[in-house]
Amino acid sequence: MRIDVLSLFPEMFSVPMHDSIIGKAIENHIIDLDVTNFREFTTDKHRHVDDYPFGGGAGMLLQAQPILDAYDHTRKTAKAAGYPQGKVILMDPAGKQFKQHDAEILSHDDHLTFICGHYEGYDERIRSIVTDEYSLGDFVLTGGELPAMVMIDAITRLIPGVLGNNQSSVEESFSTGLLEEPQYTRPAEFRGMKVPEVLMNGDHKKIALWNQKEALRRTYLRRPDLIDHHNLTSTQKKLFADVRIEEEEKQAAKDADKKKTFTDKD
Amino acid sequence: MRIDVLSLFPEMFSVPMHDSIIGKAIENHIIDLDVTNFREFTTDKHRHVDDYPFGGGAGMLLQAQPILDAYDHTRKTAKAAGYPQGKVILMDPAGKQFKQHDAEILSHDDHLTFICGHYEGYDERIRSIVTDEYSLGDFVLTGGELPAMVMIDAITRLIPGVLGNNQSSVEESFSTGLLEEPQYTRPAEFRGMKVPEVLMNGDHKKIALWNQKEALRRTYLRRPDLIDHHNLTSTQKKLFADVRIEEEEKQAAKDADKKKTFTDKD
Repeated sequence: MRIDVLSLFPEMFSVPMHDSIIGKAIENHIIDLDVTNFREFTTDKHRHVDDYPFGGGAGMLLQAQPILDAYDHTRKTAKAAGYPQGKVILMDPAGKQFKQHDAEILSHDDHLTFICGHYEGYDERIRSIVTDEYSLGDFVLTGGELPAMVMIDAITRLIPGVLGNNQSSVEESFSTGLLEEPQYTRPAEFRGMKVPEVLMNGDHKKIALWNQKEALRRTYLRRPDLIDHHNLTSTQKKLFADVRIEEEEKQAAKDADKKKTFTDKD
Repeated sequence: MRIDVLSLFPEMFSVPMHDSIIGKAIENHIIDLDVTNFREFTTDKHRHVDDYPFGGGAGMLLQAQPILDAYDHTRKTAKAAGYPQGKVILMDPAGKQFKQHDAEILSHDDHLTFICGHYEGYDERIRSIVTDEYSLGDFVLTGGELPAMVMIDAITRLIPGVLGNNQSSVEESFSTGLLEEPQYTRPAEFRGMKVPEVLMNGDHKKIALWNQKEALRRTYLRRPDLIDHHNLTSTQKKLFADVRIEEEEKQAAKDADKKKTFTDKD
């Protein structure tokens, strides 16, 4: 996959995208990442890439000319290297919220171009080359570089060969639809905190039950919306009934404690 | 504000957090950012920071010891510099989804510590120091560094003095509850694409109406869920009625075109 990025801060990509797992994929020629500073394409003699909006309004807009000309250049370079004209993604707070499903679809593409903005906004004519607009979520950032890196990370790790087998199993744990149970590694005791006995006795049937129960408990406490009763196995249904009773009893004990404290004060 | 980050890849933060707007805030001593490699705190002679999970299972877990010892160190350093013991944020796919409201709350804190993971997951005992768990959204990443940088960017830009006046008006446009209207800057014509006449004739009343109408149109087409009829002014209600008629007519014309094409083929 070839990835082109159009950005005023290409050096922001230098370390995050060349370190760690994505960097290895670049080294291994699975990904070809090219970051272009579109300021180099401005025809403005002062090298400006932004200007005041027509019709007034606060702030500045990125102009169409530098970005469209930079895109023409990267598209030609990509074409010469044998890549098709791919999707052009604009990072924009009003774009579609990026989700794992989008990462999966985009991971099958051969060529992606990301346009990263700064300042107030974009001249509308930049959208003439854009095929997809994405936002990471309901929050405001100083620029499009970090969210573009997040998307590139989420997309490229799904390309075969980028992740080792160990890491790819993360997906599997997500696919159960429940949050993960608490996990522990060595030492068995650290600062007085002990690993639950059941995980150390080697009884795999008991361990599997404990894992299922604690995954249900964590999901019940944090994301009850994820629990779909119809999709639970009969074992899970029993475990979940136990979890609910245990948690309700805990809550009742807490409430009683609070009441006692109040009564003591009176 | 002091920000501590515990990460195995501290160099990932070097450019993105020292360039651009956040970098200026560090230079101006508004933010004090310190990234600590918790591998330096491992007591393992091979400098490992991860190990197999008790009870079996694929993949590796980050151990509690290096992270908890690194945190003790950064907490003491922060304390010596006069900072209170602040929130400890774990980047975790099962965490609460980060939103602008969280950025606003966290921007009032004096000290934040971010724990960035890699590998499969965390030893549960790491959570003994954690006060908040966040996720950027429903997607899987190779590590916690990029989402931590996104959160730091969203939080710190809200601290007074970090942004210039120009940039802070972004918030205001968000607060109308509608998406922004299309905006244009020079030149008036580029590659045959013209700026709408109304924006160039200097009639501010007409421009204000056009802006409101096009903001409504964009919101109607992309995020109709954001339009709350009860909160529209009477002018906006009239403009919105026009937008709906215009867009329905456009759709009808498109449908008629399609039908014609089919009939022609028959």
